[in-house]
Amino acid sequence: MTPAGSESAAAYARAVARFHRIAVLGEAAAMLGWDAAAMMPAGGAAARGEQFAVLAGLGHGLLTEPAVADDLAAAGAAAAADPWAAANLALMRHAQARAMALPADLVEAQARANAACETVWREARRAADFAAVRPLLETVVRLTREQADALAQALGLSPYDALMDGYQRGIGAADVAPIFDRYEAFLATALPAAEEHQARRPPPRPIPGPFPIPAQEALCRRLAERAGLDFAHARLDRSAHPFCGGTPADVRITTRYDEADFAKAVLAVLHETGHALYERGLPPAHARQPVGEAAGMAVHESQSLIVEMQACRTDAFLGWLGPELHAAFGGEAAWYEPANLARLWRRVERGFIRVDADELTYPAHVILRFRLEQALIGGDLAVADLPCAWNDGLRALLGLTPADDAQGCLQDIHWYDGGFGYFPSYTLGAMAAAQLMAAARRQTPGLDAALGQGDLSPLRAWLGTHVHAQGSRLGFSDLLRAATGKGLDVADFEAHLRARYLPS
Amino acid sequence: MTPAGSESAAAYARAVARFHRIAVLGEAAAMLGWDAAAMMPAGGAAARGEQFAVLAGLGHGLLTEPAVADDLAAAGAAAAADPWAAANLALMRHAQARAMALPADLVEAQARANAACETVWREARRAADFAAVRPLLETVVRLTREQADALAQALGLSPYDALMDGYQRGIGAADVAPIFDRYEAFLATALPAAEEHQARRPPPRPIPGPFPIPAQEALCRRLAERAGLDFAHARLDRSAHPFCGGTPADVRITTRYDEADFAKAVLAVLHETGHALYERGLPPAHARQPVGEAAGMAVHESQSLIVEMQACRTDAFLGWLGPELHAAFGGEAAWYEPANLARLWRRVERGFIRVDADELTYPAHVILRFRLEQALIGGDLAVADLPCAWNDGLRALLGLTPADDAQGCLQDIHWYDGGFGYFPSYTLGAMAAAQLMAAARRQTPGLDAALGQGDLSPLRAWLGTHVHAQGSRLGFSDLLRAATGKGLDVADFEAHLRARYLPS
Repeated sequence: MTPAGSESAAAYARAVARFHRIAVLGEAAAMLGWDAAAMMPAGGAAARGEQFAVLAGLGHGLLTEPAVADDLAAAGAAAAADPWAAANLALMRHAQARAMALPADLVEAQARANAACETVWREARRAADFAAVRPLLETVVRLTREQADALAQALGLSPYDALMDGYQRGIGAADVAPIFDRYEAFLATALPAAEEHQARRPPPRPIPGPFPIPAQEALCRRLAERAGLDFAHARLDRSAHPFCGGTPADVRITTRYDEADFAKAVLAVLHETGHALYERGLPPAHARQPVGEAAGMAVHESQSLIVEMQACRTDAFLGWLGPELHAAFGGEAAWYEPANLARLWRRVERGFIRVDADELTYPAHVILRFRLEQALIGGDLAVADLPCAWNDGLRALLGLTPADDAQGCLQDIHWYDGGFGYFPSYTLGAMAAAQLMAAARRQTPGLDAALGQGDLSPLRAWLGTHVHAQGSRLGFSDLLRAATGKGLDVADFEAHLRARYLPS
Repeated sequence: MTPAGSESAAAYARAVARFHRIAVLGEAAAMLGWDAAAMMPAGGAAARGEQFAVLAGLGHGLLTEPAVADDLAAAGAAAAADPWAAANLALMRHAQARAMALPADLVEAQARANAACETVWREARRAADFAAVRPLLETVVRLTREQADALAQALGLSPYDALMDGYQRGIGAADVAPIFDRYEAFLATALPAAEEHQARRPPPRPIPGPFPIPAQEALCRRLAERAGLDFAHARLDRSAHPFCGGTPADVRITTRYDEADFAKAVLAVLHETGHALYERGLPPAHARQPVGEAAGMAVHESQSLIVEMQACRTDAFLGWLGPELHAAFGGEAAWYEPANLARLWRRVERGFIRVDADELTYPAHVILRFRLEQALIGGDLAVADLPCAWNDGLRALLGLTPADDAQGCLQDIHWYDGGFGYFPSYTLGAMAAAQLMAAARRQTPGLDAALGQGDLSPLRAWLGTHVHAQGSRLGFSDLLRAATGKGLDVADFEAHLRARYLPS
């Protein structure tokens, strides 16, 4: 190696060591985040907010020390030899550029403001009292705009795109807006047609409870294991909203239980298991490096939805699942027949609440939020006007008017914890899931037959190779291209919805 | 303020801000430590070890930046005005001197080696296989000796004293050795006398189980609440060994349940509640500053033992507790009579296991470890010779020979996780608890009458004022002096033991 080459290699090695430390700080924050949602007593919230703020500040400090820029500049020659190292270096430089754009006091101020707002929001939502949280949300929006403006300047993006980039690198509003416009047009005809088609078929037979929670919990655990989750590296707990947290070595999924309805818990666990399998399948050789992380939130959502929506709501899987449910909960065999489960779990219904929405109308909820958050960040919509704008938007998209803000703009945690630019990931993920499933089916004979045996392993193997093990080497579009032969193509999602919800 | 004064005030303010961040890092590590013991799946251990190492390294880095020394030097004038600030600055300087003595790579190497050794120890103890963990313990001892030597030089202490200082500032082997020698002599006559006295009284009637775990758990929670623990700022969970972790705002206590015997869980919860009340009672005005922390591990242990041993095993409290136990578990009223509970829970019995030991023989277990760990750190005892030395020592102190190393030198986590110098705290704490209880009784009329009503609030109020709210302002001896009028006086502990275990 030339002296310059060995200097470059040393610089890259120092950068790798530094990003390892940054990733470990992120792991600590992730575990504390899980704890905050699943375990923490209410009185711990303020201290936890401070812990998040300090960890964020330290991570930011590690990224912005002057030595980092020098090392990242010098590391180019060493990293060029290996495509993973080259991709890693590019991601390091991107992360460093984002961090350098933000003053440390803004990073900590945001962490504190977001935690404070989220705490008040929990009570405000319960009380359907937007006014109670409004001043805190105004602070969060103000700081987020500061953040977005600073990032925009550094990255040469619009402020809103700079926020989106934080969740799914390389995807901006100009990529998403036409896709969402097309979906809005599709929905305008598909939704009435699906409703009409559904009305002509027999209604589902509700499955009467109660379903004891220990039985639900045991079943959820068994299904997650069956789907491939290794509980030597995972936990299943409860939280107000299901999520997947933790780290690749120790992934934490949660759900919530309703004695009257086991479906919510079961489907949420299948969803979170999809996320968890992605984390577990990330390339160990690149652990704690940017290139070893998940490829972004849209890709992450594709992995949860491909399990929950694409695989586990098929007739084939429901045919296997029915007898499992019957064994767990008893009652009449007819309740658990796949046709009845399909009518229950593939039911189209306009509603107020995003997380309860069916596959077809879910994107409408996302489109509403996508448009509103652009206006909030762009300064075209004041926080005070959010409730009205929300209700107008929902009326236009789904013909519904919320009775109060708990059914409207208070329902999601995202903005109240500073998460702007995240919502599009849900629908990009749904679309990518359909496209990945179509490709997996083409390339994997017997995939559906295996689902009929409750066996996700052929699907998991395909995802393991084409998605999980890729880490962040490829961005959203390149990952899809490598896995499916094309960039995001909404036609696959529309074809899936037509086949499932419209008359053939 | 003079310019020099305002410079000094600014330096002190910077130091306060820095120690706040260090404390918050410690909080994150504390929550991760709780999680590792109470929640983490086995597969998360390696990642968790790395998280501890990085957090420890970052905390060390914050303490050792060159700016810290300058600020601590300049802050003297500003801190001198207020006794709390002066004490805080002295503690800051002490912490900084300890950190400066240790190279960063040693700090992280120790965190990694300790975590790795602890993981292997868990299996080695199960298998009673000392050889399996021996090489890892050798590494831990080697690194601990490096640490002790470095600290010794910087602090002007012996290596072992430098380790003890990390758990209970200002207390060294020369303080403890004569106390322990005196106790050994006391025990040589008191133990046979207590055994003889016990043999002459009726044996306890065992309370037959099973005791359903949910009922035990509900009772434990109720007792902790009754003792003053606010579950808006606390949790009660399970772990292999009971402990108190978390942070003052969010304290986490654990216990373990045995269906055949509720006493272990109940007494452990009372013990951990004592620790938890101390954390909850620390002075909020000094939160996240050295002076706002607990005054050391011996003081901490005094707070758990004053609740568990001094208060809750009195005839008065047992008289209240009996009917509570009867209501929780049913069966014959006679089982729960205070005289029977006293015979069950104040039983002297020579045994192998420290954590199962009675009050009288417990110090013998500590004395054994105190002597062995001095020899290990001093280089007079090789790790390979530890099992033999352990068995010889136990034979000399209690006349017992362990059947295997699980009953012997593998039983405690402490050395395997790098905790050398901690053991004396247990017995110093037991002695301090007796001394504090005697003072609290003298100063608080009605304290025992309240215990007879299951009411710890008079004791808690006294401890709150004289111990909890003092934070770390005073060291072990000065705290005792301020609270009881004298430094540590073993006579109070001996008097307590005589009254409880020997013929009057």
